[in-house]
Amino acid sequence: MADLDSLIEDLVAANRILASEGIVDAFGHVSARHPDYPGRFLLSRARSPELVEPGDIMEFTLDGVATASIPAKPYLERFIHGGIYELRPDVQSVVHSHSHGPIPFGLTGEKLRPVVHSSATLGAEVPVWDAQTSFGDTDLLVSNVAMGIDLAGAVGSGNCVLMRGHGSTVVGKSIREAVYTAVYLEVNAELQWKASFLGKAKFLTPGEIEKASLRLGQARPGEGFNRSWDYWCRRAGIPSKPNA
Amino acid sequence: MADLDSLIEDLVAANRILASEGIVDAFGHVSARHPDYPGRFLLSRARSPELVEPGDIMEFTLDGVATASIPAKPYLERFIHGGIYELRPDVQSVVHSHSHGPIPFGLTGEKLRPVVHSSATLGAEVPVWDAQTSFGDTDLLVSNVAMGIDLAGAVGSGNCVLMRGHGSTVVGKSIREAVYTAVYLEVNAELQWKASFLGKAKFLTPGEIEKASLRLGQARPGEGFNRSWDYWCRRAGIPSKPNA
Amino acid sequence: MADLDSLIEDLVAANRILASEGIVDAFGHVSARHPDYPGRFLLSRARSPELVEPGDIMEFTLDGVATASIPAKPYLERFIHGGIYELRPDVQSVVHSHSHGPIPFGLTGEKLRPVVHSSATLGAEVPVWDAQTSFGDTDLLVSNVAMGIDLAGAVGSGNCVLMRGHGSTVVGKSIREAVYTAVYLEVNAELQWKASFLGKAKFLTPGEIEKASLRLGQARPGEGFNRSWDYWCRRAGIPSKPNA
Amino acid sequence: MADLDSLIEDLVAANRILASEGIVDAFGHVSARHPDYPGRFLLSRARSPELVEPGDIMEFTLDGVATASIPAKPYLERFIHGGIYELRPDVQSVVHSHSHGPIPFGLTGEKLRPVVHSSATLGAEVPVWDAQTSFGDTDLLVSNVAMGIDLAGAVGSGNCVLMRGHGSTVVGKSIREAVYTAVYLEVNAELQWKASFLGKAKFLTPGEIEKASLRLGQARPGEGFNRSWDYWCRRAGIPSKPNA
Repeated sequence: MADLDSLIEDLVAANRILASEGIVDAFGHVSARHPDYPGRFLLSRARSPELVEPGDIMEFTLDGVATASIPAKPYLERFIHGGIYELRPDVQSVVHSHSHGPIPFGLTGEKLRPVVHSSATLGAEVPVWDAQTSFGDTDLLVSNVAMGIDLAGAVGSGNCVLMRGHGSTVVGKSIREAVYTAVYLEVNAELQWKASFLGKAKFLTPGEIEKASLRLGQARPGEGFNRSWDYWCRRAGIPSKPNA
Repeated sequence: MADLDSLIEDLVAANRILASEGIVDAFGHVSARHPDYPGRFLLSRARSPELVEPGDIMEFTLDGVATASIPAKPYLERFIHGGIYELRPDVQSVVHSHSHGPIPFGLTGEKLRPVVHSSATLGAEVPVWDAQTSFGDTDLLVSNVAMGIDLAGAVGSGNCVLMRGHGSTVVGKSIREAVYTAVYLEVNAELQWKASFLGKAKFLTPGEIEKASLRLGQARPGEGFNRSWDYWCRRAGIPSKPNA
Repeated sequence: MADLDSLIEDLVAANRILASEGIVDAFGHVSARHPDYPGRFLLSRARSPELVEPGDIMEFTLDGVATASIPAKPYLERFIHGGIYELRPDVQSVVHSHSHGPIPFGLTGEKLRPVVHSSATLGAEVPVWDAQTSFGDTDLLVSNVAMGIDLAGAVGSGNCVLMRGHGSTVVGKSIREAVYTAVYLEVNAELQWKASFLGKAKFLTPGEIEKASLRLGQARPGEGFNRSWDYWCRRAGIPSKPNA
Repeated sequence: MADLDSLIEDLVAANRILASEGIVDAFGHVSARHPDYPGRFLLSRARSPELVEPGDIMEFTLDGVATASIPAKPYLERFIHGGIYELRPDVQSVVHSHSHGPIPFGLTGEKLRPVVHSSATLGAEVPVWDAQTSFGDTDLLVSNVAMGIDLAGAVGSGNCVLMRGHGSTVVGKSIREAVYTAVYLEVNAELQWKASFLGKAKFLTPGEIEKASLRLGQARPGEGFNRSWDYWCRRAGIPSKPNA
């Protein structure tokens, strides 16, 4: 249970960090795969992320069914999370948001690619998923298992996907990595957008992406995901705790 | 009277939310149709919206005449509200603002159209009203009944209108819907503006607009207008109350 | 003396409002013509505007000489103010700033013109003054009487001037009007800049500029300069007082 | 020791100012050359700059080796600082950051040049260093002596360098000058970026750069680096102290 409690603590912190950093607002959500039951995931009841508390965390099977019959209302789009956990056994956390930076790329087909080492975790090129392609006219929300699986297919083996007319979703091997990538997807989109007016931007090479990702993913205390996590905790008013 | 008190409470909250979210500043106003007398509407006395209190709310007939002779000065542009309530019996709330995002679209004739599901309530295309067309050189303020009716004609059966060289006005079937649309008119304008430099943006299809609007308008607690309303109330420092 | 005290109170408030609204930072200054001696003006000692207090206000003759030998250091660029008061007997207040919005217009020769009724006080077109033209290579600061008079000549009979590679200066018939115009110069620059990418913007017509300026300049309590002044006072933490 | 204590006080303030002004976030660092041993420099242990305290300051030789064996982890990129102090005996302080404004210039080869007198310390044109040129595919971090020296070579006799796909580094003859230049590198990048869409911008002439730099560098109390330093101290919540 210590693992679960610790994970829920990080999950609640992730909700608040994403709100504090402007990645989510009234909408958006972050989940984690259950540490003991890989066929389940943890996600808050339908609530604005900045308000989420440990007691709000619900448990779902990968088809989006709550494992306990409690009266709380779940997020409509929990199928985003379930679909990705289904197709990607390596993924431990998923963030979905409407953060502004990436949306123009999803609307225009301009490829979003890493322009700074800090955003190497985006991968070489961020794919765009359009609900219209497989499902025709919808309200654009991922509101059932079929849409969740279709979206997960677009993520492929990468870490991010843009959702046309909607927002974006990122994944990570930990909550901290997913939060990091969600923030740097926004940062990179802003930088690439600005660079696109000055001339042809030089993107990271495949070799640079690989090496910078490796550096970020290292479990070196104080570097990479942990230093930014601690920084964002302070900004969100979350008491710091020693890194795992 | 319970209905009226509750409506005034929402109207005061709407003033503060619009200020807190940066849609209005020293200028701009929001009104509601009177719940008992459809030929009247409720609007604060001339005051910066973030300061509005229940005691500031005045009652006007649709031609902009105060129904009680109190010494408070009304907004000059109350005719915006009266004109729209006159031509649109279905409208229950009106927001007028100078929020920055939509203004460049009103200046250039570039069509403002929904680019994300969250802004489906804007309708397929936002019309532009130019005071110059019917009234020649004016100070651009909607300062009499004729101008209010002319502006309302430009709104047509839609939810928004841009006012060239001035700002914009949105309507809703409730105060919460009008506030929501006012915020997402700003969000959509910013996203569309940014997308326009990357390439040709894909707008929502008519079918997507219809389905996403329907979803937003559903009285499903915790979704659509109510979740964002609660979120904005907290940001504006307004104590939350159970949703109707 | 009541007039002078009241004027100094507004001048101190103007310093704080301009800081609070982001028009000035460590640099920039605002002055007022002396109410009793039109050949003198009031300006703080060299200090960041947000810190200015009544005791900081110094008195200068129009050639920038302090009228009392006190040990305080004056702003180097007090000649901006003296030059304008010399050439423009109608001007009662001057604001100089490095606010960001107008600077790109001063660098490129793109004409800055009013795009919304709120910025009608900018006049039909804002001139650009380049220190290089009359003085060759300088540090670009207006550091003597000759430069101040040259700059004032560029203002002409208008209310604003852009200073190439430096910032901008605006004037008003009152402190409140000068502050208002300084803020809306920034707002207009931002809006015009954004509109310029969408297409050809429609500017206010000469007739609209005249009528909107007249409306803003009216001494109608609660409208125009006073409503925004009160709003900005609150944001700057300045206790409100009844309007004159 | 008085000199050292005073320098450390300024170095800690510099960390907090750079955080408060948005130049650094979780990442970025600022150092000073040791006042008594020019072959050493002072730099915090690996920590987000806004948290740095006097006890965090470590001492390094120019090849990045800590002079005392304390358990604190140093910044990986301390070689940026060592390399520059090695090649540039006149430099007393170095700031490295990922501040957003200059990055698009480093990506596209568009030359960053001073557009306002306040940014004259940038020099005539800011060079771009690309780790790829000498080192091929790396994680883009300056993680050894060779990379630090190579970067320092690109700085040449100037004050700034852009680092492709990474960020930027600036130097100064004092901590206050380096902090000033770091802030105005960001300001200038934003202004130049915006101007680039309106037309061909007029940059400062070489003579203007020289004269404006001279003015900024003067030890005239209350002007130049000190006025902005005091202003930024207040914004960062640092108690003011008399200028040296």
